[in-house]
Amino acid sequence: VGISLFIYAKVTGTGFCKKKCDKKGSVVNQNIKKGDSKVVDTFDLEDIGDKKVFCRCWRSASFPYCDGSHNKHNTETGDNVGPLIVGKKSN
Amino acid sequence: VGISLFIYAKVTGTGFCKKKCDKKGSVVNQNIKKGDSKVVDTFDLEDIGDKKVFCRCWRSASFPYCDGSHNKHNTETGDNVGPLIVGKKSN
Ligand code: FES
Ligand code: FES
Repeated sequence: VGISLFIYAKVTGTGFCKKKCDKKGSVVNQNIKKGDSKVVDTFDLEDIGDKKVFCRCWRSASFPYCDGSHNKHNTETGDNVGPLIVGKKSN
Repeated sequence: VGISLFIYAKVTGTGFCKKKCDKKGSVVNQNIKKGDSKVVDTFDLEDIGDKKVFCRCWRSASFPYCDGSHNKHNTETGDNVGPLIVGKKSN
């Protein structure tokens, strides 16, 4: 009976985990300004210059700018996120 | 003994879940262009107009634009993500 309950509990545990991770979803942002209720960044169009690359994976050490950390995140998790690029047509 | 093993297994199951969710991290993007190896969006500075609000939570039905879905995501998961706004100084 002990063994049966153990196996049952393991299966239940995994089901709970799957639900928590995939269904309800886990947080997107793990580290950036977690004291703020919502992280919104506003840029003046006039200050973009030739080109800016903005982070959308929330793993960049240079957030709100992209530092390439999305590649490590994608490799580690199987994700496919990447930055938003805003620049002059000429670039 | 059955009860003890059950409790032990529940704790173990939760530990596994926590590790899977928080340590290695789960995917940020659950639905958008999952056939692409990396989702990068590029905008011409000249086409921004007065203002554009760009999604960084990957839950928007209007991705790459923000449709406000970050609020539902934040409420459901306890996250604190929000959009990137690019606009003219006058706005
Ligand atoms: S580091 Fe986050 S998108 Fe590049
Ligand atoms: S809907 Fe994704 S940031 Fe607003």
